[in-house]
Amino acid sequence: MQKNRLEAFSDGVIAVIITIMVLEMKVPQGTDFAALKPVLPVFLCYVLSFVFVGIYWNNHHHLLHTVTHVNGPIMWANLHLLFWQSLIPFVTGWMGLNHFEALPTALYGFVLFMAGLAFLFLQWAIVANQGRNSVLAGAIGRNRKGKISLLFYALAIGLAFVNRWLADAIYLLVAAIWFIPDRRIERALSNHGE
Amino acid sequence: MQKNRLEAFSDGVIAVIITIMVLEMKVPQGTDFAALKPVLPVFLCYVLSFVFVGIYWNNHHHLLHTVTHVNGPIMWANLHLLFWQSLIPFVTGWMGLNHFEALPTALYGFVLFMAGLAFLFLQWAIVANQGRNSVLAGAIGRNRKGKISLLFYALAIGLAFVNRWLADAIYLLVAAIWFIPDRRIERALSNHGE
Amino acid sequence: MQKNRLEAFSDGVIAVIITIMVLEMKVPQGTDFAALKPVLPVFLCYVLSFVFVGIYWNNHHHLLHTVTHVNGPIMWANLHLLFWQSLIPFVTGWMGLNHFEALPTALYGFVLFMAGLAFLFLQWAIVANQGRNSVLAGAIGRNRKGKISLLFYALAIGLAFVNRWLADAIYLLVAAIWFIPDRRIERALSNHGE
Amino acid sequence: MQKNRLEAFSDGVIAVIITIMVLEMKVPQGTDFAALKPVLPVFLCYVLSFVFVGIYWNNHHHLLHTVTHVNGPIMWANLHLLFWQSLIPFVTGWMGLNHFEALPTALYGFVLFMAGLAFLFLQWAIVANQGRNSVLAGAIGRNRKGKISLLFYALAIGLAFVNRWLADAIYLLVAAIWFIPDRRIERALSNHGE
Repeated sequence: MQKNRLEAFSDGVIAVIITIMVLEMKVPQGTDFAALKPVLPVFLCYVLSFVFVGIYWNNHHHLLHTVTHVNGPIMWANLHLLFWQSLIPFVTGWMGLNHFEALPTALYGFVLFMAGLAFLFLQWAIVANQGRNSVLAGAIGRNRKGKISLLFYALAIGLAFVNRWLADAIYLLVAAIWFIPDRRIERALSNHGE
Repeated sequence: MQKNRLEAFSDGVIAVIITIMVLEMKVPQGTDFAALKPVLPVFLCYVLSFVFVGIYWNNHHHLLHTVTHVNGPIMWANLHLLFWQSLIPFVTGWMGLNHFEALPTALYGFVLFMAGLAFLFLQWAIVANQGRNSVLAGAIGRNRKGKISLLFYALAIGLAFVNRWLADAIYLLVAAIWFIPDRRIERALSNHGE
Repeated sequence: MQKNRLEAFSDGVIAVIITIMVLEMKVPQGTDFAALKPVLPVFLCYVLSFVFVGIYWNNHHHLLHTVTHVNGPIMWANLHLLFWQSLIPFVTGWMGLNHFEALPTALYGFVLFMAGLAFLFLQWAIVANQGRNSVLAGAIGRNRKGKISLLFYALAIGLAFVNRWLADAIYLLVAAIWFIPDRRIERALSNHGE
Repeated sequence: MQKNRLEAFSDGVIAVIITIMVLEMKVPQGTDFAALKPVLPVFLCYVLSFVFVGIYWNNHHHLLHTVTHVNGPIMWANLHLLFWQSLIPFVTGWMGLNHFEALPTALYGFVLFMAGLAFLFLQWAIVANQGRNSVLAGAIGRNRKGKISLLFYALAIGLAFVNRWLADAIYLLVAAIWFIPDRRIERALSNHGE
């Protein structure tokens, strides 16, 4: 039951995050295509962030699936993850309104980096609670995908000041990597069930 | 349990969408009927969009009712549906603030069209997962109502540039068609139960 | 399960409504008591509306408690109730920003009147579904409290144009009447259980 | 089931509160570090408030865990707690936009004080309902931590007008005290289970 409430609260926060992002797309004054034009970069950022938040929700869903008991560290690691995700609307708006300028693009990557790190912390908190031999610990293994994402984000933060389009390309690449929910967990769970 | 969380998350997102739309109705400065007048078209758009989002929630409820297992494609098809629904507040505000001008009216139809298409994709993802002989596959059959709605939306997008009131009339018509939750599914479910 | 999702969705919508109302209290520029002064009437309206939405949530909770099966009319009656409640932030902001002027005060009463009517419709939809001899039908009886509230709201709408403080006093009175959750339903349920 | 809905509603409200606070961080116009600078104090306030709301959610979670039956006073005590928490975004924005000036800092403490008091009231309502010998009553005992927090808040409100940084330091201190979820309840529950 404890776990249900943690999931319900996380779902609520993520649902609000993913939806208030759309408020950064301000309704334009005019009624022609020219009036829509300045909204376009904000819209593209919104699409990217929607995919990222969707990925986090999907992975969160899979991660919590393996949890049987929630303790204090898991709760705080989860809140910490939600904190960094809650900053996504702000950096999305800043990057979109400024046509992917260097600093907004770098800050966007920084928030994603911190959210990725927070996801790792949450995994560690769960493994610490359930033991190294738990389903999750086996499934995550050396956790290549999570660590590679962090490397890519760090790379994109630096590249934002050199060529911001390269940074944006990396964000798209990471989104593509994570698009498919974590098969390792699904596989380990079904192995475990046999 | 997986399915419960998908429903809970969708409910959260749809609840936020349906409620933040009301924020597009800006509190007017004056205190007489004249001050309320510019709010009226936004209010009418809000009513229309509230009905559409309500219809989607109702149908989503019925559709998920038939699902027993959630997989990756269903999750992403569901997020894709939520994405297009999340754009409804933006197009509602744009259409309302511009007194149903041609382009905002057409864009409103486009978002509804894409949401309708996304609903179809979600149906396909569920049928693909549960097999052609499942309750849902039988219930949907040739899925006339969904396809007719898409045709009507496409028609309205074109008509918006000819006579925008005709386009709005079509939106009302589609809302009326979908007002009653999908009896086909209810019927098939009770047949199945016998 | 159907009922659970109706409750979850309603909870989500009401949670968003009750919380976004606070956004009508704009953060003032100055840092002294004078800067806070214009926020005060909006705050008072917020308190009143918070109590009303809280009452609706409480009564909704009690009403749905008696429901065993959800059908189409109940779903739409519920959405209709949520629609009128969703307008409360708008009228709260308008009344608060205009220091309880006549028309905003009357419109506030009108939205409460319509929400009260919508609650009655929802009761009827539930009784129609569950039969005249159901727990709810017996509990509601002639439904004096609901009808008296509607009378009071209608009175307040008229009085707003004569003396708006009388109208506000009536809103306080109705809030006081409903403050205690509906004992009739609780009593009937425990009688039923014996 | 009644309790589940109280939890779900509270989770929804708290999820919206914690997320709309981020909207007080307005997207800046420029794209350099100078443009971000005025956002920094709002960001720091946001972090502090996020932690406080997180603490309240954690403690709420633990408190409700001990509840078996929800009655009217518990419902209203819970709504009262949510009311004061709903004001946190407003005072967060005011304090952040004014660089921790005296009155905003004091008002921030006042809202936290009232929320702390409301949490106490909720505890009393639950103990009153479940009896002095219940798990919760034993766990809370003389409730030192809750009362000390209130004292600290009162102190900070006064100190805000003398040295506002001292007031802010006290807020950090209280956050640190409550950071760990209430072990007393966890301990009493596990003793009870033996």
